[in-house]
Amino acid sequence: MRERYLLDWTVGFSDDETQKPAEVVKSEVPGAVQLDIAKEKGYGPYYFNDNYKDYLWMEDKYWHYSGEINFPAIAGRIFFVCGGIDYKFKVYFKGELLYDYEGMFTPFELELTDKVKDGDSIDIVIFPVPKSCEYPVDRCQANQSCKPAVAYGWDFHPRLIPLGIWDETYIESRSDEFISQAAVFYKVDEVDYSFADIEVVVDGEFNDSAKLKWLIKDACGQIVLEQEYAVSEVVKSRINDIKLWWPNGQGNPYLYTSIIELYNAKGEKVDENINRVGFRTVAIVMDEPTWEEVIDFPKSRTTPPITLKINGRKIFGKGSNFVCPDVYPGIITPERYVEQLDLVKDANMNLLRMWGGAVVNKKSFFDGCDERGIMVWQEFPLACNRYEGTESYLKVLDNESKAIIKKLRQHPCIVIWCGGNELFNSWSRMTDQDLAIRLLNKNCYELDRDKPFLPTSPIMGMAHGHYIFREPNNGREVYQIFSTSNSTAYTEFGVGSIAANIDVLKKIIPEEDLFPINSGTSWEYHHAVAAWEPNSHLTLDVVEDYFGKSKSIDDVIENSQKMQAAGLKCLFEEARRQKPHASMALNWCFNEPWITAANMSIVSYPAIPKKGYYAVKESLRPMLYSAQIEKFRWQEGELFSPSFWLLNDAPEYFLGDNVKIYLRIDDAEHYIMQWDIGTVEANTNLQGPTAHYIIPKGEGSEMKLILRSEKNSGLDSEYFLIYSPLDIKEDEGTRLLNH
Amino acid sequence: MRERYLLDWTVGFSDDETQKPAEVVKSEVPGAVQLDIAKEKGYGPYYFNDNYKDYLWMEDKYWHYSGEINFPAIAGRIFFVCGGIDYKFKVYFKGELLYDYEGMFTPFELELTDKVKDGDSIDIVIFPVPKSCEYPVDRCQANQSCKPAVAYGWDFHPRLIPLGIWDETYIESRSDEFISQAAVFYKVDEVDYSFADIEVVVDGEFNDSAKLKWLIKDACGQIVLEQEYAVSEVVKSRINDIKLWWPNGQGNPYLYTSIIELYNAKGEKVDENINRVGFRTVAIVMDEPTWEEVIDFPKSRTTPPITLKINGRKIFGKGSNFVCPDVYPGIITPERYVEQLDLVKDANMNLLRMWGGAVVNKKSFFDGCDERGIMVWQEFPLACNRYEGTESYLKVLDNESKAIIKKLRQHPCIVIWCGGNELFNSWSRMTDQDLAIRLLNKNCYELDRDKPFLPTSPIMGMAHGHYIFREPNNGREVYQIFSTSNSTAYTEFGVGSIAANIDVLKKIIPEEDLFPINSGTSWEYHHAVAAWEPNSHLTLDVVEDYFGKSKSIDDVIENSQKMQAAGLKCLFEEARRQKPHASMALNWCFNEPWITAANMSIVSYPAIPKKGYYAVKESLRPMLYSAQIEKFRWQEGELFSPSFWLLNDAPEYFLGDNVKIYLRIDDAEHYIMQWDIGTVEANTNLQGPTAHYIIPKGEGSEMKLILRSEKNSGLDSEYFLIYSPLDIKEDEGTRLLNH
Repeated sequence: MRERYLLDWTVGFSDDETQKPAEVVKSEVPGAVQLDIAKEKGYGPYYFNDNYKDYLWMEDKYWHYSGEINFPAIAGRIFFVCGGIDYKFKVYFKGELLYDYEGMFTPFELELTDKVKDGDSIDIVIFPVPKSCEYPVDRCQANQSCKPAVAYGWDFHPRLIPLGIWDETYIESRSDEFISQAAVFYKVDEVDYSFADIEVVVDGEFNDSAKLKWLIKDACGQIVLEQEYAVSEVVKSRINDIKLWWPNGQGNPYLYTSIIELYNAKGEKVDENINRVGFRTVAIVMDEPTWEEVIDFPKSRTTPPITLKINGRKIFGKGSNFVCPDVYPGIITPERYVEQLDLVKDANMNLLRMWGGAVVNKKSFFDGCDERGIMVWQEFPLACNRYEGTESYLKVLDNESKAIIKKLRQHPCIVIWCGGNELFNSWSRMTDQDLAIRLLNKNCYELDRDKPFLPTSPIMGMAHGHYIFREPNNGREVYQIFSTSNSTAYTEFGVGSIAANIDVLKKIIPEEDLFPINSGTSWEYHHAVAAWEPNSHLTLDVVEDYFGKSKSIDDVIENSQKMQAAGLKCLFEEARRQKPHASMALNWCFNEPWITAANMSIVSYPAIPKKGYYAVKESLRPMLYSAQIEKFRWQEGELFSPSFWLLNDAPEYFLGDNVKIYLRIDDAEHYIMQWDIGTVEANTNLQGPTAHYIIPKGEGSEMKLILRSEKNSGLDSEYFLIYSPLDIKEDEGTRLLNH
Repeated sequence: MRERYLLDWTVGFSDDETQKPAEVVKSEVPGAVQLDIAKEKGYGPYYFNDNYKDYLWMEDKYWHYSGEINFPAIAGRIFFVCGGIDYKFKVYFKGELLYDYEGMFTPFELELTDKVKDGDSIDIVIFPVPKSCEYPVDRCQANQSCKPAVAYGWDFHPRLIPLGIWDETYIESRSDEFISQAAVFYKVDEVDYSFADIEVVVDGEFNDSAKLKWLIKDACGQIVLEQEYAVSEVVKSRINDIKLWWPNGQGNPYLYTSIIELYNAKGEKVDENINRVGFRTVAIVMDEPTWEEVIDFPKSRTTPPITLKINGRKIFGKGSNFVCPDVYPGIITPERYVEQLDLVKDANMNLLRMWGGAVVNKKSFFDGCDERGIMVWQEFPLACNRYEGTESYLKVLDNESKAIIKKLRQHPCIVIWCGGNELFNSWSRMTDQDLAIRLLNKNCYELDRDKPFLPTSPIMGMAHGHYIFREPNNGREVYQIFSTSNSTAYTEFGVGSIAANIDVLKKIIPEEDLFPINSGTSWEYHHAVAAWEPNSHLTLDVVEDYFGKSKSIDDVIENSQKMQAAGLKCLFEEARRQKPHASMALNWCFNEPWITAANMSIVSYPAIPKKGYYAVKESLRPMLYSAQIEKFRWQEGELFSPSFWLLNDAPEYFLGDNVKIYLRIDDAEHYIMQWDIGTVEANTNLQGPTAHYIIPKGEGSEMKLILRSEKNSGLDSEYFLIYSPLDIKEDEGTRLLNH
């Protein structure tokens, strides 16, 4: 069988591929060269204040890894196995060039049998950060590589471009015969979804006399398939009475285990390969009425479909955009993923868009999604650039995309392949004719054609944005922006807020800069101001317009988060109300790659929820009572006309209820009306009544609309709003009223 | 070298693949089994009256061809070479199954060396017409095959579904060594288009000792490249000072000749392969302002590009939809294509859309387009159906599409590959996710990636329609329909008319049915009425509303054609005025597969121009004066406000002119205004003045707006309009005025 041995790594840098480094330091593998150097040289942490600037010089160096191999005297074959090296590199063994590659996503292994001895070294040279141009010093430099563009600088990411060995890397001993890969393919019957035809394709090195044994076990460990066969045979089988893999909220994400065992001619088990299998079908389908939307001649085509259908059931995609969990993907651990994915699942999400600007995550991330029923929309590493189809770029993209598809296609969580982010918008200027897009579609077709492929997000009919609570130019709030939109899917939208709490802020901002909040300080280096517009992501002017002048950093934290929470609640629920024409709601964004001072994320790095997180969790309950509200700020005497909805995307009937509706102004609770509801079909919303209610006189500055169930308090909702007593109007003029 | 020997063919039918036919008849190859049987049995011609109904029983028979081989005693190798068999078939030789295939577009050859002798036979069994379902008896039956759907019945095509050997088929003798295929690939330098890097990939059977010689000659026969090399070598070269292939109206469609000669070890020339090469680049690009069209958040993608760019120059695509030149493609001759393509070129067209409902034409068609600078938009055989991606269908589509691409990719005329017709509309219900579309994109990428691929026509932003002069429900005429549209390309639009002349009509309609025109007669069998709406394609009610009651068939011919001519002139010129946002205007349709009584075609079968043809020819002149007119019918005292334009899509400056504008009411010519124009850049339209003129009193029922050049009468234009004297208004009411 197999044994793994870690190498002892050092790393150093030079100005040239062949020049040896002047000195070397101990290296953590997997990791990043920047972290090794910073540790050795005593740099301040890259996330504090503007320390990241100290790391910039490392972009343009050649990096020289040396890994000392230590392993006991053993029989069998010896391999150097590497999960990925970031980015362009060559691998040498005793001066011999073994491997020369560009791209971080393709794992590789090199056989060292018969030539390696204890104490030998593997030498790796990593080239400088790829840059297609010297200026501008931003994401454009990534437009001819498969390096995640976010690292070149983004509105929530410092310019810190990792280099190094970033995934599991080790020496492995194996038997003379072994399995390289066992890919399980299946087709679920689409009549009643009761059985699957299944086949396994085993690659490896074995003699004709070897035998394979294929076992499939259910989640309880019961064997549901057991077959022995010669390595030359193609094995296909059928599993009856399957349990399906369902997205979160729709059923159990049931997983089977497939085990391939390899036996040599003597009948000894010499290797095994274990995979998990989740049986499900996936398609992207049209919303029926959309077929008839195009009426008049001259007549164009219909907008393309974007409704997910899993196991024959249309499912509203609700979730978030998942960005890099760390600036340095090499240090992301499985535990980090677990912590974040538990939050995703707890927030009633069923879909994560893995944004094309970011790294394609490690296997353990997708294992976590498989286990939790989190569907994954996976993009290739293209974002907001024009990736021209030169021969050299297409070659790298071809290799890297195939590696990504092969690595992930076995995961039931993967439901959509997508070319990348905002490629067909004016700031990118790619089109359906771009060879890069056609190549990705082709590779997905060849290697994983049963999953949908989207060229980019957004495609026609879908939408990205808006990213603010209130538009500065016309005063429109989230309440009006989404309710007048008619998109087929909302795959990015957001509202900024400050970080989760004061402790988080103190990790990145010097004490003396904490309050008041100023430009040119750590607030700016950490994206609270001037991230993409002068006031974003914090928009403190808007926060203070609603909540009043902040007297301390605690006020900012409280009020900024309240505004984000109210905004996201409005946006998510409005998108859900537009079902089935709208089929997805994914906010920008879930997490962040380092601690930001302000951002649209709903958790602070690494996994600290903001108020917005809890609001989203409420809004994404499978069933809830929801209110469509006209605006954020109200005042005595105004006519308040919220409409009430039952939102239901659960696969279950709603069995009827009586809902009492109240308006609370600070501590005073005013009864508005009662709403009696009968049964409602599964996965179906119900539009209820609209109230017409004059805002009464009250004390304080906040009000809440409360929907309270008689039968099931789990469906209750509360909407936080701003209450302005009448005298404020006289002070500040009518602008308060008319947003 | 090579010699060809034709076979003597017979054909018969039976009810079963293995059952021999009761009798056989002489067969014309290439041809169609239906034509052989009809000739032998003395059927009336399928195009007269309702004779086509007599042919319907042949759809469901098994057809048994037998081809007797006659050739002199010769050395070398012997092949059975076949250009295509329609549709599913098996080929036997002396009882041995040699070939089993589904699809008409893949040529094949079978080696008979050493087993064939003079007098032997090739036996071919052709299966019944493929039908995916029994009902409805229409195009749906073609939705799991690559058989052109039009033959199953269309609004201009009878249900007549060809079967048989439809392209060149013969016995060929060859030397022991020979060339199977020589594919020339090139890349034109896109900086100044002065040179091309060129390579040839030669397949064939030859020994290592054989030599190849590659010659490229220019159009005058001068050798511009000459290289000898071993068959094992890959040969790449560069040709400097190339002459480019240009579309009609943009320059010369310059063609080179590539000759590959094969020499055996003794130095004897044993085979050669001759190809023509036209150097050009092709892309589909965005119209610049379109990038910025999507303004508001939530923001979708930009509409996809559809502007052709040839050799770095944006070119307005003007032309027509080319449908099958014959119901039976087997009998189409090169001469037929020449006759039609001469008309296409003469009409100032530069682009033909080869509609997905029709057959993919024979090689000589594309040779003709190469020679005339007619660009070709080639669709695969999918139209107006949902072609579900079953394993069996995808296999056929994969084979057939690859054969089509390999056959056509060498032709410089081919500028666009397209999945098929109206696949993303509600009547077809395919989407970008359909495996058939993804497969076609993939195959085009793999085999011919430098050409654009469109999934279907229309894509988003483009438009099909309208197909009538005046909408019955709202009275809108072509004059208003297009001027209020904002499409990126108009790839189908049309106006119906009766056949070209009385002689044509007499070929299909019994003398006694010629007038008046009634349903349930040959008029209906030949699509003049009830083709797609009760009155289409003739819309005699509309014709008579403008021109008055027809007194004879001659009146109908005259007036129907005048209306089509006026309508097409309006539509083509309006589309051209919308350049550069609009980038194409292709009317539906150019030709027709049999004689129709009425149709939207501008030539009657096979190549007899209607008035509409000449109107289109005028409207497509590279430079002309054009008028945007508000409506078709005018009357004394109305305000007539035409706007005047210079349309210029020539690569030449317009040098200035004075244009005098007149209105002629029958014989009286009224001066309206003079328009003085300065120089205008190449390939650029100019909007001139708008006249405001009160329609004077006149005699008669017709008027003409005349634009007359002082310097170049080649730019003059005339617009035919209806003139109603005032008293008609009083007779017929105000409805006449308000269309």
